[in-house]
Amino acid sequence: MNTIRRIDSNAWPSRAVCCGDLVFLAGMTADDVSQDVAGQTEQVLAKIEGYLREAGSDKRMLLSAQIWLHDIGAWQAVTDVWCRWIDPGHPPARAVVGATLDRGHLVEIMVTAARSPS
Amino acid sequence: MNTIRRIDSNAWPSRAVCCGDLVFLAGMTADDVSQDVAGQTEQVLAKIEGYLREAGSDKRMLLSAQIWLHDIGAWQAVTDVWCRWIDPGHPPARAVVGATLDRGHLVEIMVTAARSPS
Amino acid sequence: MNTIRRIDSNAWPSRAVCCGDLVFLAGMTADDVSQDVAGQTEQVLAKIEGYLREAGSDKRMLLSAQIWLHDIGAWQAVTDVWCRWIDPGHPPARAVVGATLDRGHLVEIMVTAARSPS
Repeated sequence: MNTIRRIDSNAWPSRAVCCGDLVFLAGMTADDVSQDVAGQTEQVLAKIEGYLREAGSDKRMLLSAQIWLHDIGAWQAVTDVWCRWIDPGHPPARAVVGATLDRGHLVEIMVTAARSPS
Repeated sequence: MNTIRRIDSNAWPSRAVCCGDLVFLAGMTADDVSQDVAGQTEQVLAKIEGYLREAGSDKRMLLSAQIWLHDIGAWQAVTDVWCRWIDPGHPPARAVVGATLDRGHLVEIMVTAARSPS
Repeated sequence: MNTIRRIDSNAWPSRAVCCGDLVFLAGMTADDVSQDVAGQTEQVLAKIEGYLREAGSDKRMLLSAQIWLHDIGAWQAVTDVWCRWIDPGHPPARAVVGATLDRGHLVEIMVTAARSPS
């Protein structure tokens, strides 16, 4: 079986869990919830990029993404930020739905990516 | 590492992303939103079947499915269509929850499947 | 390609689907919905533990978890139960969002885990 490596784990969530060729990231939210949904999305994508790097992956290796919006009406604003961030020609499969988020979070994103086992 | 193949990618979503033995499909919705939830589900499942085929997979190789319903009260109507579609004896693990969908979509489905790398 | 093994499948959902090193569980809910969200969470985690065992896995091999709460306000109550259950040092990547659940379910959890192919 493949060895499992956990990044930034604590009592209850790991930020990223690597298993063989795959890495599963936690649902990421913004730290600064005073920002609007576009700003929060930028924060989330920067976090994802950092954890992908730690996992031996990068955004060109994204496989799948789930995006939860506190207000589905923010779909276009989030997609605009997303499109600027994604590596052209290497987008993941994606789903976007509305869901209740707490503590001022307007967007949460959870991705699965391929990685190069080291 | 496994080669990643993307099907029908454009600026922001790939419809399906293949990596080794796995294929991740995007969240699929109906094109004709004038149909009721049963009709929309049929459209979604037909799309999924098409993309699975392109990915070297089929519905007998489904591993996991998430179903989002705009109205959770449609659970039975969607499950009826689902049960007619699924290959008997080869159902995926499934979760169904209510979530806000936009632009008249009543159901969205995202699946992960095994595939035969070619 | 890896052989796919399905656990407790019937007409429409499999409770768990194994493929190579991975196992995908269905979204699990409590059988006794008269219990509060903490009690329901305990029921769900016990079910997950059972299916992981059948799949040649266990909670130390969890990779990813999605938790849907009927009321996002139950976040802390569910996290408290979760933290007692998780094996210290082996938490999965996790996302928690609010979603409409039906038939009295207050929490639903869907996990992906590694397994030892037998």
